[in-house]
Amino acid sequence: MPVNPPLNIALLGLGTVGTGVAQILTDSAALLEHRAGRHLKLRKVLTKNPAKSRDITLLPGVLASNLQEILQDPSIDAVVEVAGGTTWAFDAIVAALEAGKDVVTANKAILATRGAELFSIARKYQRCVAFEASVAGGIPIIGAIQRGLAGNTIVAIQGILNGTCNYILTRMTDDLLDYPTALRGAQDLGFAESDPTLDVNGTDAAHKLAVLAHLAMDATLDVEAISRRGIDTLAPLDIHFASELGYSIRLLAEIWSDPAGITSHVSPVLLKKNTPLAQVRGAFNAVRVIGDSVGETLFYGAGAGRKPTASAVVSDLVELAVSRNGLLAATNRLWTQNPSAPCLPPEKLRSRYYLRLHVVDRPGVMAEVSGVLASHEISIASVIQHETPTDAANSQVHMVIMTHLASAGRFLNAINALNQLTCVLAQAVHYPVGE
Amino acid sequence: MPVNPPLNIALLGLGTVGTGVAQILTDSAALLEHRAGRHLKLRKVLTKNPAKSRDITLLPGVLASNLQEILQDPSIDAVVEVAGGTTWAFDAIVAALEAGKDVVTANKAILATRGAELFSIARKYQRCVAFEASVAGGIPIIGAIQRGLAGNTIVAIQGILNGTCNYILTRMTDDLLDYPTALRGAQDLGFAESDPTLDVNGTDAAHKLAVLAHLAMDATLDVEAISRRGIDTLAPLDIHFASELGYSIRLLAEIWSDPAGITSHVSPVLLKKNTPLAQVRGAFNAVRVIGDSVGETLFYGAGAGRKPTASAVVSDLVELAVSRNGLLAATNRLWTQNPSAPCLPPEKLRSRYYLRLHVVDRPGVMAEVSGVLASHEISIASVIQHETPTDAANSQVHMVIMTHLASAGRFLNAINALNQLTCVLAQAVHYPVGE
Repeated sequence: MPVNPPLNIALLGLGTVGTGVAQILTDSAALLEHRAGRHLKLRKVLTKNPAKSRDITLLPGVLASNLQEILQDPSIDAVVEVAGGTTWAFDAIVAALEAGKDVVTANKAILATRGAELFSIARKYQRCVAFEASVAGGIPIIGAIQRGLAGNTIVAIQGILNGTCNYILTRMTDDLLDYPTALRGAQDLGFAESDPTLDVNGTDAAHKLAVLAHLAMDATLDVEAISRRGIDTLAPLDIHFASELGYSIRLLAEIWSDPAGITSHVSPVLLKKNTPLAQVRGAFNAVRVIGDSVGETLFYGAGAGRKPTASAVVSDLVELAVSRNGLLAATNRLWTQNPSAPCLPPEKLRSRYYLRLHVVDRPGVMAEVSGVLASHEISIASVIQHETPTDAANSQVHMVIMTHLASAGRFLNAINALNQLTCVLAQAVHYPVGE
Repeated sequence: MPVNPPLNIALLGLGTVGTGVAQILTDSAALLEHRAGRHLKLRKVLTKNPAKSRDITLLPGVLASNLQEILQDPSIDAVVEVAGGTTWAFDAIVAALEAGKDVVTANKAILATRGAELFSIARKYQRCVAFEASVAGGIPIIGAIQRGLAGNTIVAIQGILNGTCNYILTRMTDDLLDYPTALRGAQDLGFAESDPTLDVNGTDAAHKLAVLAHLAMDATLDVEAISRRGIDTLAPLDIHFASELGYSIRLLAEIWSDPAGITSHVSPVLLKKNTPLAQVRGAFNAVRVIGDSVGETLFYGAGAGRKPTASAVVSDLVELAVSRNGLLAATNRLWTQNPSAPCLPPEKLRSRYYLRLHVVDRPGVMAEVSGVLASHEISIASVIQHETPTDAANSQVHMVIMTHLASAGRFLNAINALNQLTCVLAQAVHYPVGE
């Protein structure tokens, strides 16, 4: 058989993921050549810190001194962007496309916030942008939604998309830790960054949700407008009450489609303990996809880390080598200026709710609370209120209420009204309850 | 934009899956055209029983009177084989390839037993064979292994690949039913065929395992030689003891690769209750894939049924329409005459084991049993033997032993020796314990 020319690759960034990509390309070269029908050759690597010691040894001449050296090298077919960030990385990707290179990126922030801009440039130069590594690390969820489930109208996606948060929640639940202690543990083990803000406040998950929503539902979400709550304000008490009710709390990124439009949010959500998503533990990710034909599916695996994320990058490189056409067709279709599927405002999201009220323990409180809920047409499904240890005057108690389905708008109005009651001693705590 | 020509499709078989394919092609025509960039047009349908009433209405002229009408129609691009069986279906697929049609099939039995023959014919005519629907119904596991995990050396696959068996096992476990009663329930609900032999004895799972093994590990398994036990001899007593030990029993199809070679089997296996596979309930399927880079992944969904399986068929049709190159590259690479990865005989499989012995309740029995195991170098991890209700002479008891890792060969030799002991009253019952 004739020997096909290699696919020549340049890597922008040699951090955690970049190092993993270089390792796989080196260590699995023969396997990849068998699968791709061509050698996947790492020709150039650009890194901010060329002098830093690393777990890999690059061949002489592979380390590039600047981006231009890569852009001007006509032998480079594909540029892998794993540098991160949205400014230098965006400019570098655009320059690569303009120079006629296909691009593989793990950069969910760029896709979520500048996808239309990026893909219009790619189309102009008829180059591919592949991004399997951008969501859920090693789980091949991008390909699953784009190709494997292509016969489906996607009804819903529920994702545990941030391994840091899931690790912290698992520790809080299993080891009864409070949030700051669990966070410190995650940082000590390298599961959380020294500044964990974008992970724990839900921003990272919102970026990933926007990417999945676009693929699955042709929805272009305004990331800033996604209703978003993180885990940084979650109290052990609510994990405890959830458990008593038979639920675990997970940070979910969800999008639901119905004929009226699309609703989405990122929030801690109570999930029945025996459901697959509730059982995802530690730094793992999982994505539940519901299609009109396939029904319920779940995809589970490592959501981050050197080798899992690099596995996804390399799968895109194999795809480029085997079947560039398919990736180009996707690039031509995605993030076009076509009108997005209609996105509804957050208050339209319908859910059951968990509600915890810290109230005075005196006669009439239940009547007041239930009266407010009734006046907002919020229907109560169950209530827990434990006996207080003393009969002293001014004793206080937690009242936990599970509601039936309600829209977020109506529910939040009820919460505002409850917070005005004199018997309610602190702002009401509330979380959605998942389906 | 120019309008691309349609992808013209002929359907062989209008049973459960065929009807689902026709429904999706009709009901989701606009969506599919958007995703594929071409209209997916159902041009011809061949069925054994054209007069039978169905849930779909075909357009006039779509019903073909014979296979030749389809083969000789130059407008037909792709033939979908969902007729089942390995004789007529095989000949029809070959005839379609010879007539220049690409083929989409759900036929795991043909792939597992005649893959090399089929793919060499496809290569001769440079036609594609796509088969996402052949394993695990709606779960896009073929694409996940072939493309999404292409950067990995696959170390192991463990699959719950037969929904009928998993449904029966779930009923036996949850509702304490015996096998015949659970089977009848499954038949009444349409989860099991009137002749369930190929499902419950593990043959169906072995076919699917052979397909996955080929994709993941370049292994060409002799399906007849796959060590195979079904669920039809499983006793409620063993489900009970497994549960007491913290395990659930699932019918697993497993393949493991290590430097020495590949081992595989289909068997009821004890799995720790809190592991993802143990939690797969009812007629669902799941596939756990372990890759050297990605680590542990799990893919979960409906393993059979009209719409889920049709969803997989349609995903192949979309792929044909978008990126036939990629499918052709796979066809050129799979089931070639290249030497298979080395497959080890079943006795090389290493596992922990569950062992139940029905023994006389008298002094010295434990010494005899443990002596036999020791002489075969089988190490005991734990033992359960409950007190018998009476102290009568000749009382009998079940002794349950969990072993440490051992090769199947050595373990089965020990079982043969145990069965010779006079204190052992019935053939020893034993199952592997999963990792």
